[in-house]
This record gives sequence, C-alpha cells and structure tokens, in this order.
Amino acid sequence: MTEATGTPTSDDLARMAVELRNWGRWGEDDERGALNLITENKRAQAAALVREGLSVSCAGALPVSRGLEPRPGQHYMITGGDQVSEEARFAFCLDSFSIAPHGPATTHLDALCHMFYEGKIYNGYSKDEVRTDGAQKDSIMAGADGIVSRGVLLDIPALRGVDWLEPGERITIAQLEAAEEREGVRVEPGDILLLATGREARAESRGPGAPWDGLAGLDASCLPWLRERDVAVVGCDGITDATPSGIDEWPMPLHQVLIANMGVHLIDNVSTERLVAACRERHRYEFLFAIAPLRLEGGTASPVNPLAIF
Amino acid sequence: MTEATGTPTSDDLARMAVELRNWGRWGEDDERGALNLITENKRAQAAALVREGLSVSCAGALPVSRGLEPRPGQHYMITGGDQVSEEARFAFCLDSFSIAPHGPATTHLDALCHMFYEGKIYNGYSKDEVRTDGAQKDSIMAGADGIVSRGVLLDIPALRGVDWLEPGERITIAQLEAAEEREGVRVEPGDILLLATGREARAESRGPGAPWDGLAGLDASCLPWLRERDVAVVGCDGITDATPSGIDEWPMPLHQVLIANMGVHLIDNVSTERLVAACRERHRYEFLFAIAPLRLEGGTASPVNPLAIF
Amino acid sequence: MTEATGTPTSDDLARMAVELRNWGRWGEDDERGALNLITENKRAQAAALVREGLSVSCAGALPVSRGLEPRPGQHYMITGGDQVSEEARFAFCLDSFSIAPHGPATTHLDALCHMFYEGKIYNGYSKDEVRTDGAQKDSIMAGADGIVSRGVLLDIPALRGVDWLEPGERITIAQLEAAEEREGVRVEPGDILLLATGREARAESRGPGAPWDGLAGLDASCLPWLRERDVAVVGCDGITDATPSGIDEWPMPLHQVLIANMGVHLIDNVSTERLVAACRERHRYEFLFAIAPLRLEGGTASPVNPLAIF
Amino acid sequence: MTEATGTPTSDDLARMAVELRNWGRWGEDDERGALNLITENKRAQAAALVREGLSVSCAGALPVSRGLEPRPGQHYMITGGDQVSEEARFAFCLDSFSIAPHGPATTHLDALCHMFYEGKIYNGYSKDEVRTDGAQKDSIMAGADGIVSRGVLLDIPALRGVDWLEPGERITIAQLEAAEEREGVRVEPGDILLLATGREARAESRGPGAPWDGLAGLDASCLPWLRERDVAVVGCDGITDATPSGIDEWPMPLHQVLIANMGVHLIDNVSTERLVAACRERHRYEFLFAIAPLRLEGGTASPVNPLAIF
Repeated sequence: MTEATGTPTSDDLARMAVELRNWGRWGEDDERGALNLITENKRAQAAALVREGLSVSCAGALPVSRGLEPRPGQHYMITGGDQVSEEARFAFCLDSFSIAPHGPATTHLDALCHMFYEGKIYNGYSKDEVRTDGAQKDSIMAGADGIVSRGVLLDIPALRGVDWLEPGERITIAQLEAAEEREGVRVEPGDILLLATGREARAESRGPGAPWDGLAGLDASCLPWLRERDVAVVGCDGITDATPSGIDEWPMPLHQVLIANMGVHLIDNVSTERLVAACRERHRYEFLFAIAPLRLEGGTASPVNPLAIF
Repeated sequence: MTEATGTPTSDDLARMAVELRNWGRWGEDDERGALNLITENKRAQAAALVREGLSVSCAGALPVSRGLEPRPGQHYMITGGDQVSEEARFAFCLDSFSIAPHGPATTHLDALCHMFYEGKIYNGYSKDEVRTDGAQKDSIMAGADGIVSRGVLLDIPALRGVDWLEPGERITIAQLEAAEEREGVRVEPGDILLLATGREARAESRGPGAPWDGLAGLDASCLPWLRERDVAVVGCDGITDATPSGIDEWPMPLHQVLIANMGVHLIDNVSTERLVAACRERHRYEFLFAIAPLRLEGGTASPVNPLAIF
Repeated sequence: MTEATGTPTSDDLARMAVELRNWGRWGEDDERGALNLITENKRAQAAALVREGLSVSCAGALPVSRGLEPRPGQHYMITGGDQVSEEARFAFCLDSFSIAPHGPATTHLDALCHMFYEGKIYNGYSKDEVRTDGAQKDSIMAGADGIVSRGVLLDIPALRGVDWLEPGERITIAQLEAAEEREGVRVEPGDILLLATGREARAESRGPGAPWDGLAGLDASCLPWLRERDVAVVGCDGITDATPSGIDEWPMPLHQVLIANMGVHLIDNVSTERLVAACRERHRYEFLFAIAPLRLEGGTASPVNPLAIF
Repeated sequence: MTEATGTPTSDDLARMAVELRNWGRWGEDDERGALNLITENKRAQAAALVREGLSVSCAGALPVSRGLEPRPGQHYMITGGDQVSEEARFAFCLDSFSIAPHGPATTHLDALCHMFYEGKIYNGYSKDEVRTDGAQKDSIMAGADGIVSRGVLLDIPALRGVDWLEPGERITIAQLEAAEEREGVRVEPGDILLLATGREARAESRGPGAPWDGLAGLDASCLPWLRERDVAVVGCDGITDATPSGIDEWPMPLHQVLIANMGVHLIDNVSTERLVAACRERHRYEFLFAIAPLRLEGGTASPVNPLAIF
C-alpha cells in the first residue's frame, strides 16, 4: 500500500483479488454471485420502504443516433407516418434499434462475464466460455428474474459540500462511512449501493468531457469494505472506478475485483440527478430499487432503466 | 352489433372509437394517456401488496439470433475470450445487439404512437409526427420514469378449466367478470391488467405456431368495459387482440381503439407462465407490477422485462 | 469411389483434399490462392474479348428487408423525404443497411477463410486466426484489387435440353466436357468458371424452395478436373455444391476442398439468368468478367455484383 | 457571378440549376440520368483501352469498426474459429456487417435520389418518393447492370506541381483544361471523370482532418463545362465539391446541381492514390473503368470498389 494515499499497489491488488474472491461461495455451478445475497426477506423489507409511491428513473437517454455516426447505438424507423394514408383505421409504425450496451454513456448492467481475470471469469469459468455465439457462463441472464432490493444512495458531493467531484477524484472508506453517518443509513448485506459523484451536474456546467478525461469514483482501497458489507450490486453515475486509477495493470481495479473476483454486478452510467434531488428533498437515502435487465441469452450486459421507488 | 356473438361490427367499432376516445382528457399536450391514472397514491398502495419479496419476470427470452436469419433481432460479440491472453488481469468482453421491439415474439411495451387511426395518433397528433428520425410525439418516453402500479392477473384458462385457449378464441366481458369473482379481485382505475390465455402452455404442447395461426385474446366488445374500469395498461401473453378478429378493416380492434383512441399502453407477448404459477400457488392475483422501458427517445416501443413482486 | 455413381466416398474425399491441396504452392505467406493464376496477360486477353460493350450483371437483388423479419439483411432510411421542406435547395436523404453476406440468397464471394478443414484454413493457417475481431488471415481482402479475368459459362440445362436441373442433381466431368464441346470453349488456367443450373427459371416456375430442398451443382468427382484445369474462381447460380451431397461428413465437398484446400474462391448465388440469355443469343460463352468485392478488412465474404462484359 | 473569383453567386446557381437541368431529356420516366450517355459503343471503345491487364482498385478500406464507436459501419463475426473443433472437416465462419454508405470516408456511389432540390429529385419526382421503406424512384438500381465506360483521370496536384491541394481549394475550368492538355486527353460524352486532389497524400502527411476542415474540389463555375462535356459520372478523392463552398444556401453546389438537376451520379471518397501512381508511371490517363454497385432496391447509395483497368 502506498503510504501517502492508502491506494493499494498492483501487488496489493493481486493479493486482494484472491482474498476477497467469492468463487465457490455459492456453489461450484453458481452464476449469480452476490445476487445471492438478496433474499426474499430482503426484498420484502425493501418494498416496505415505499411510502409515497414516487417512481424515479435512474437511466439516461439511450444514446442512439440516426445519423452517420451511430455511436454507440442506432435507431431506425421501419415504417413511419409517410407510408400511411389519412383514411386508414388500421395502420402502424415500427422501428428497430441496435445498441452496444457497454457504451460509455449508456446506463447498463454489466454481466459477471464482462471482466476476465487471468483467463477466468467469475466463479473460475474459463474465458473461452465467452464465444462469438455469446457467453455460455455468467451471462446477463443471472438477473433475468429482476434485481429488486433495498437501494442506498451515498451522496458524496453533498458530504463534501461541492456540486460535483472532479474527474479522477477517489472516494475513500472514510468518506463512505461519513456519508452513511450524515444520511443516517448503513450499507448492509444484499443492498444495492448507489454512488453519486455529481457527474451530470458537472457535464451540464462544463460539458460532457471525453472518456479519457477520467471519472470520479471509488479508490481501490474500498474493496475490502464492499466485501465486508456484502453489497449485492454497485451503481454509480460514473463507472464505480475512479479513472485513471493510477495503478499499473489495474486501469479499473473495482471492475477487475468486484466483477471477476467477487461476483458483484455493476451498473455503469447511472443517472443520479433525479435520485439525488428526491433523496435530498426527503432527507431519505434508502428506497426500493428495481433493475429489470432484458432477458438476453448469452449477453454480456443489458441497457437498463433502474427505478428507485419511494 | 352482431346478435349471435356480441362482437361489434365495423360500424360499431368506428362509433366506439370516437365514444371511448380519451383525446384531450388529460390536456391538449398530453402524451401519457391512461398512464395519468397511476397516481402516487396508487403506486404506494401497490407497493403495500408486497409481502414475501418474490420477484417474477414476465418477459420471454429476447428473440435474437446469431445466425443468418436474424429475426427479429441479432446478438453479436464485439470482443470475446478468443482475444484475451491467459495472463491478463485487465481484459473484458463486449457485445452488441439489435432488435425490432415489435417482433412477434418479443415482450415489448407499445408506445402510444404505434397505432395510426385515420391519420392520427393518440391525442389527435398527426401521423406525420412519426418520421424517419423518430416519433416526435407519443413516443415510448411517456413511460420513461417507470410504470409502477397494481398488477391484476385474470387467469382465463383456470376459469375455463382448460390448459389454454385456442388461437382465435375471444374472451368476453362476462368471462372477465367471472374471473374477477373467482379470484376475488376487481380491476380498478390505474391498474395494469394482465391476461393469461395459456399461450406458452399451448406452445410447449403443440409447437409455437405461425403468426397467421391466430392468437386468443379479448373480444372487441370488451372495449367499453376497459374504458369504464379505466385500466392504465393492458398486457397479455398474446397481443390482447384475438386474431383473426373477424371484422373487416379491424384486424386488431383492441390495438386500434386502446392505443390510438384511448391512450392505453399495451404489453405484447408477456410471459405469463411463471406469473400464473405464482398466483395459483398463493391464490392471490394482485401484486406490485413494475415496467421499466428503455429511455429510447423517439422510440415506438421498448423491449421490457416486467416484474411482478409478491 | 462408389462404383455406380462415380461419387467419391468420405475416405476418397479425405485423400483428395490432401492430394489436390494448394497449400504452399504460392508461398508460405500467400493468402490469395488460385487468384495467383490470373496474370496480367490473362486479364489483357480477357479484355480483348469485349466487342459490343454489353454489360450484364450477375447479381440478384440484395436480400434486405425493412420489416420485422430481417433475413438476412436490413435496409433502413436514416433521413427521408418526410424531413425535408418543399423550398430547400440543399437537402438530402441517407440510409443504412446491414447484411450477413453468406445469406442463402445473397450473391457473394466467399473468402478463403470461410471454410475450416481439420482446424485449418487455406494455406495451413490456424482456425484461431478467425476471431471475434475479424479474420486475421485469408480475409476477403485477397480480392481487394478486383478479380478480373476471362469468364466462361457452362450452360448445363442447354446441354441437357431442359429448363433447369432439379435440386440435388449432380453435374459430372463428362457433362462439363460435353458443355465445353457444345459451346466451343475450353476452361483454362486462371479462368472464372460460371455454372448455370437453371435455378432462377425453376424458382419462377415452381417457387423459390427452402434451403433444405437442395440445389443442383457439381458432383464431388469433379474436384480433380477443377484442379487440372486450374480455375481461379468458380461461381454458380446455386452454391457450386450439389446438396444434399449424399456423403457423410461432407455436406459440401466442393466448399470443403475448393476453398480450404485448393484456395479457390467461390461465388454463391450468382444470378445467371441474364448471362445465359446473352450467351445463348450470341452463341458465345466467354467474356470479360469483373468481380469487385468491397474492401472489408477481416471479412469472410463480400456481397458482389459481378459483371460479364461482351 | 462574383468578379474576382468567377465563383457563381447563390442567384447564379439557382439560374444555372434550371438551365443545366436534364429533367425530361431521356424521357419522363427516366431514372438513369447521364448514365444514358454510356452507349454500348462507348463501352466497347473503353474496353479497347486495356493493354496490360492491370487492375487498380479505387476504393478505400470500408470504414467499419468492431468497437463501441461504430462509425459509420460495423463488422461482426457470427461464427468464428472459437466454435470449431480441431477435427471437423466441415465447419465454417460467418460474419455480418452494417454500413451507412454515405459515411464521410466511405467510397460510395450516390444514387440520383440522394439530393433534394426544391422538393424534387432528378427528373422532377417528388421528395416524398424517398420513404422510410426506401426510395421508390431514382434509387441506386439505376446502376444495377454495372457502370462501365472510359475513365479519365485529371491529376490536379501534378498540374500544379504540388503533392496535394489544401482543404477548400477550388479547381477551375481553366485548370481542368490545362490538365487535359498536359495529359493529352479530352473529357468526352459518357466518360467517367475522376479528379485527384491529393487528399490521401495530405492525410498521410498531416493526418486525416475532420469533416469540417473542408475538402478541395471543383468550383461551382465548372458546372456548365461538365454539362457541355456531358460526363456520365464524376468521382473524386473528396466529394467533388470544394468545401466550404463559400456560397449561402449552397454548401455543396456540385451535389445540388449535378445529382438533382443534371442527373449525374457522383462517387465520393474515391481512393485515387494507386490510380494516380499507375497513370503517372504510364503517362496514360484513360482506362477502362467499372463500377459495380450492389443491387440494393430502394437504396440511396452503394459502397463500391471501382476498378480501373489498364
């Protein structure tokens, strides 16, 4: 560990990956990882948090284009109004879209097969299970029945008294715990932990920035804390990882350890703006949280529209 | 009305479309239609139905292929395990998929722009709002914040004492009310009404059938009942319409009147198999129901994975 | 060899694959295979065959759809006339299409990487060169500079005095040579051999048939003849192979031996209708033939519009 | 006309569009435009130019990607080597690609429907013929039988004694005629005129530049000369137009007048590098030129690999 910052070194991380690893914890055939921590009881308790009936979407607009630069998705009309007579009582429009869900601005749930670690994916399956015909193991189907649990938002900009964190800023365990205290919540087993870094507020003020500008996120030193708390899913308005990470061979230590080793699903590019507003207004940072990934067999991710319900 | 069956004639339906029409009911600029019937209070009551914490997915597998016949969607691996070394600690897979959400086997939510009626879409907007660059009005974004309400399942095969309804069979108001009575529920304003016809049980026994074989669904005579009960959304393991409808110019009267005239969103190709099993086991036919359409601006539909939570 | 028919057995074919193999013939690093047989001199002689200036397309319509069943390709309008004012002097339309070139009705040139034989592709490269990120060897770029040579059409239905061959009928060496004699041509090194089986005439009369109905084509016993004549490319209105082949493990012996072992590019689903008419009318069966595959790096095929010029 | 430069004003161009217009010249139902100028005799004369048998591709690499930024096309492997056993004698790979042919770096032939002028496309058809289900008039099928004629290259950098023209530089009639004289050729009716501006040489030296940096091309004052010479097709390593054009309402006067009014097909983003080298080496600037657009019904363009044959 580098003394000044507490950020682990590359060797620390290699050790940590093995120590925190959940391979085998839920059986040799498991493909669900930390989703196993969401029990029926947990879900029922989460539903009991709903009082007002407010539903808040935590997805950004699906970033599809209709032009010559279709990044990362496209939306095409198959049949439009231009093919329909004014008289017809039976007529309809159709469309089609394509999307690469891991796109850098797409709100998406990463499947556990998304990250390879030394030739393996979560639970020790071989990288070769991810083939041109789709992932044979650890696909997005792990969440096919819906991921519904208690959601807890940790609002780091509010803790710090700023509008947003700057790209590259790293959140520490101390800050996570300070945020818990400030909000009167405690992250518990089976929770879906949501992290706000103020990315959207920054983008509105400063422009969206480029992927290589970096993102605020967790310091790699938070990994043992996440294991101790046994979170089921982590979502962030960035990608959970602070980038650049500043660690050789570990450009995304949270992705590398959480997904491949700990079996924790991540939601990247969560839209936290509406959620933060709702939480601050109510001084309530826990809610029912529902993620409904598409049932895409063999998929390595799904675009999602996660809902927080108060 | 044809006396023998009660099924409306083409002229009856043209009158009905105007009489049941909700254009202007929620304001001239409205694009949400009957979703306005889902109040916060309604949502809170729905959440209170959750006792056990069981989450049931009501979507079928996303029908994508990876072969030469990509109907109606495709799934492609961008980066697979074949590009990754055994040593790498940082490596990942990526994929991409395309889908035409209205595909005949895709669990999808129809946007209100999906159906044109005499050159108009819901609330009287022109068909020309649906352009090659996407729907400018009544797009799928009406449901962007999530559609969360009480779900009520009417289990018609159980009512009839059969495993499934045959293609083309039409459910009547009398049967809907008999099912309510049998189940001890009553469909109320703002509800999401789910209809089981046993399509999946039939497909497992007899094969999937072709689109032109027809589907069981509601008789067009149910339209006034749906307006009276003020349902917010209707979902079915078929397409809500019984096909063939047997009425000239009205191949899908429920789609034609519910979507374009009444502003009611439909979910086609709901997977009801797991839901029916859960309801029968509990003798409980109401639950929290959450639909999270992708935030696809200008979209005419979204593939969805609707969740019923008990 | 099976005595009655002359059709080789599976063992015969395994021997033949090795005997006829051109691996190493044009160097260890070669990726062009029999295209090396098309010399500049050959091309100049082919151009000298042009007398009238008639250009005949040998492609069928690109089989794209715009509906919900996009097999095997799709065509979408990005910007159409519905977005343009009547006054604009600067306005334009844009579109996009996708295609899986090996589709069963697409006129396409197979790259030499298309077929794997015992884990290898042409010239002995490993199957693992064909990765999720494209073919690293033997891609369609072998033909990037255009494939221009003498084309020779062998009109088998005319030889037989029929309008078309039936699915599964197998053309023999004797028939190829009888067709040469009848037409007054001889297939020579570097030629592009085109085979008419009357598939389009049959489809117009009997309907298109399904892929599993089979196709007329060459008997596997023709392989040594093709090697002896040293053709550069073979095209057919079917897929060169007669299907079913009737030989275990060898569903497409021509594809298996010609592409993977001999390094001969094939053009599948050539439209021969216009070409046959032009040849019959002129009693001339040789012409300048030009194939211009798209420069698709890493591609395993290209849709093409081959031109015969008289 | 602005005196200093000879570049037409917006009003000049509006007059010119009408004066040079070829609507009706080849009949009221015509959709081929200036392709009608390529007679069989013309094609036969062009073929007679072939002496050596050298084939030169004039296309750049199809700009497809396999990553998260698919601009403007994508290439996906359907079945790769990772799905094939080492033993199989029958195994194959398949792929799929999508492309928006008008992409800013794609060598493509524009269909005559591509440009709208005051609500019309070539020959006076309505803009509304270009619908979400494809162009009903003036589609790329005009070139379905192949476009084969004499090609003439005008090598402007050589004329000017430079390696390349700078973005925005405009070629005048005087320069076109000086190039003719220098090369000993004369552009004649039915020719395919190819213009080299040195774009690739510049890109290799200075980087590719962004679309908004502009391109060298023809000054709008060349339009009457192109009409007088009756060229059938114009191709350029840019987009024929110099951009920016410097004329209000006329960002691409060549596209606006040539395609929509004169019915001349354009090839954008021709790769002239190999062609220029071949011509300079031989001191020969005329050759057989073959363009084989895909038979894409309703298409507004086709990616092409045009071949110059010496």
